[in-house]
Amino acid sequence: MDKLDTLRQHLATITDLEAAVALLGWDQHTYMPRGGLEARVRQITTLQGLIHERLASAELHELLGDLETRAHALDPQDARLLVVTRRDVDQARRLPTELVTRKSEATGRALDSWMVNRPRGDFAAWRPHLEEVFAIVKDEAEALGYAEEPYDALLDRYEPGMGTRQLRAVFNELREGLVPFRQQVLEVAHRVDDQVLCQHFDGQKQWELGMRMLREMGFDFAHGRQDRSPHPFTTSFGLPDVRITTRIHEDDFRAGLFGTLHEGGHGLYEQNFHPAYDRSTLAQGSSLGIHESQSRLWENLVGRSRPFWDRWFGDVKELFPDQLKGVAFQSFFAAINRVRPSLIRVEADELSYNLHIFVRFELELRLLSGELAVADLPEAWDALMESTLGVRPPSPVDGCMQDMHWADASVGYFPTYALGNLYGVQIFNRAKREMPDLDESIASGRMLPLKHWLTERIYRPARSVDPGELLRQVTGEALSPQPWLAYVREKYSELYGLD
Amino acid sequence: MDKLDTLRQHLATITDLEAAVALLGWDQHTYMPRGGLEARVRQITTLQGLIHERLASAELHELLGDLETRAHALDPQDARLLVVTRRDVDQARRLPTELVTRKSEATGRALDSWMVNRPRGDFAAWRPHLEEVFAIVKDEAEALGYAEEPYDALLDRYEPGMGTRQLRAVFNELREGLVPFRQQVLEVAHRVDDQVLCQHFDGQKQWELGMRMLREMGFDFAHGRQDRSPHPFTTSFGLPDVRITTRIHEDDFRAGLFGTLHEGGHGLYEQNFHPAYDRSTLAQGSSLGIHESQSRLWENLVGRSRPFWDRWFGDVKELFPDQLKGVAFQSFFAAINRVRPSLIRVEADELSYNLHIFVRFELELRLLSGELAVADLPEAWDALMESTLGVRPPSPVDGCMQDMHWADASVGYFPTYALGNLYGVQIFNRAKREMPDLDESIASGRMLPLKHWLTERIYRPARSVDPGELLRQVTGEALSPQPWLAYVREKYSELYGLD
Repeated sequence: MDKLDTLRQHLATITDLEAAVALLGWDQHTYMPRGGLEARVRQITTLQGLIHERLASAELHELLGDLETRAHALDPQDARLLVVTRRDVDQARRLPTELVTRKSEATGRALDSWMVNRPRGDFAAWRPHLEEVFAIVKDEAEALGYAEEPYDALLDRYEPGMGTRQLRAVFNELREGLVPFRQQVLEVAHRVDDQVLCQHFDGQKQWELGMRMLREMGFDFAHGRQDRSPHPFTTSFGLPDVRITTRIHEDDFRAGLFGTLHEGGHGLYEQNFHPAYDRSTLAQGSSLGIHESQSRLWENLVGRSRPFWDRWFGDVKELFPDQLKGVAFQSFFAAINRVRPSLIRVEADELSYNLHIFVRFELELRLLSGELAVADLPEAWDALMESTLGVRPPSPVDGCMQDMHWADASVGYFPTYALGNLYGVQIFNRAKREMPDLDESIASGRMLPLKHWLTERIYRPARSVDPGELLRQVTGEALSPQPWLAYVREKYSELYGLD
Repeated sequence: MDKLDTLRQHLATITDLEAAVALLGWDQHTYMPRGGLEARVRQITTLQGLIHERLASAELHELLGDLETRAHALDPQDARLLVVTRRDVDQARRLPTELVTRKSEATGRALDSWMVNRPRGDFAAWRPHLEEVFAIVKDEAEALGYAEEPYDALLDRYEPGMGTRQLRAVFNELREGLVPFRQQVLEVAHRVDDQVLCQHFDGQKQWELGMRMLREMGFDFAHGRQDRSPHPFTTSFGLPDVRITTRIHEDDFRAGLFGTLHEGGHGLYEQNFHPAYDRSTLAQGSSLGIHESQSRLWENLVGRSRPFWDRWFGDVKELFPDQLKGVAFQSFFAAINRVRPSLIRVEADELSYNLHIFVRFELELRLLSGELAVADLPEAWDALMESTLGVRPPSPVDGCMQDMHWADASVGYFPTYALGNLYGVQIFNRAKREMPDLDESIASGRMLPLKHWLTERIYRPARSVDPGELLRQVTGEALSPQPWLAYVREKYSELYGLD
């Protein structure tokens, strides 16, 4: 069956080009000198154009068509390879090369402008770039096609099988349970104080602490590394080389630490795909929502849990004896989990995080439908933040300019963060059921059993199973916000002394 | 004239792919986790295959042919672009894609094996890889074609216009003047002691000293950076992003420092090509010999000179007060320039360095002609080292396994190092003639006048002038070993008190 080998060779070339693009991006955000940006954007644009050309080529299309007629005779993994490759090929063939190039250039410029103008909150300077990007996103949605509304086309790229209508229903159910409970907690917010975390914590010591945690989680440093970057991210140049980044704030312990655990979760997923999938379209997460479930699981369900801090509190006290002198476990643990109305998504507590997503989802829908113009975004953002989270940004710095996603044309991406929270609890609940001593295990510093369980259930299958089906396979359940709501109700009722 | 634009677009795509290959290589030698190597070699192989495909394409060939018929109507820079592009295209078209891929894979394996086996001096384990590489190099020479002997084909890739016959004549003349003088110096070698340099020097302080020197040389950190790697190198992802590396030895001050100055010289060249040449075949050094003249000029003619240390000795003393307590300028300066029989090329003094090149040149010729088998290399190396430099390596670690060039199939490359020494002195002599106060300027910390002079004469023209012609333009002379011989005779006679 040498046509299958030919297909594999095609995909290997494409994934090698993708690895080069990923490295160009990694370097851009870690070590690249500032003056290299313009050239870098061009280089990435060129390579993305070549990738698109190959994915959309008649040759690959025909090869795939030929193999599809014989799919029934293939083993299930090979048949699945055809399915996901067809998905990628069809998507590529619907996008004209001109649009792909235009997008790469426009996002390069918009990201550059964002980096320059965000610190000074200059939305007016960023606006033309963002307008260009949203125009492109609309063109993309039309080119890709959709069943009910343009947003379906965008969402489907990140969360296959999920429609806007279903997403709305899930978010509404989530909101209904979340908003009143969060209100209850906020009314007694004063019961928890987190000043202890806002002292000076030496950056190098924080870094070493994060590295130790990554090692205990089972992150493989022979096949990956952690670096610093202004905005944490995970990228990979194939299974054997997965890179994560974090940033360290010396005046707040949480940023670096939870950044490390979050990206560490993404990193574990990427390092543990089935090795046979390397250099193929199967070596990806099942969806962005599932990917995010793994980062949020390690960041929150493990990293903000009592057993985890039973293990680490002593070590942290030893590392920062002055800062934590006389601080009791319970106050530290509560501080780590303090709930407060927050302006910034990436710093939001668990109860506020999903609300930040609702704001973005709502705005994306309005921008896409034309109901909202980019020019009016700051005002709409601020109003929606006030009605949803009860806070109003003093400046676009901490308002609609805080994320890089829109500059990058990643519209439809934000909802996968909230989905990740929900998936994560459903998956973690199942892990607890199958490993009744999981809490004890984590409390005694053994995180590898959890890593192994996730490897078998989630990591290895990679993109060979779609998210809905994966969730059913692992948990026996369909997606639902109720397990997540039950989790936060239990955890935060206890922390805040609610009945 | 839009065919010229089409050509430029072709070359831009190719140079963007080359930038990605350069980044994949840079990362491999600086930050890549060990386990990423196999995938990295495949990625580089894939991209090099795509570059070769494009360079050798009928489309580019025909486009070029069309433009060449109208070359007389073009401005000189555009006409020159056609000339050097034709050179690259013809070379690519003579090499079958199969050979290019085979070479990339074989050199990947040979470099990997070298990294593993060099530290333990296991030549037997490395041998099959080296045999494969030399077989490929022979095939390459045949495919490329040559006027008199196969080595011509290899040399011409690095030093356009230079034939093996001319190189032999230059090297013989050089040897004739060098060997007896070096012998004279070695007889009084005891007059200079360099123990002062072999104390413990804190790595971070060494690093910062090197960074300060780079800044004074005018290396632009907005468009470049320095990192650490086991073997220093310079690479570039276009003019706006030039990367150099060095390694620090805490027990010998010289390794890091002169590594920095050497690569800094390469880096200045790469950063200062004419901006209009970016993303084209003109954005390269005139030849490797000219490139090396710039690194050796900054490393030796500046960095090992009296005016340079007039400027820096005080700073170094301040940085390392314990190590340099009571050390006089003259002993320090002599130590920096101590001549001794040496096993390792990259650590060799100025009088021994070219002899290391002669050994390699001789062995390459013998290996290529088949007179010497790879299996017999260690013995031949040791014998030639003994007769040429008067030392015999105790193990292949410090013998024929010390360089990575052969594993990388870079045969014909070593001679350009010696050529660089010769070009460097001819160019530097001219600079001194045109700037009579150059010594004073360097002694008072002003290195920018030299940088500006080199920028005008050497850096900006880049590959728009071939090396022989460039040398004539800048110095009015043809290549000759006599200026270099006069330089070392004067410098080392004084240092060693010879009359």
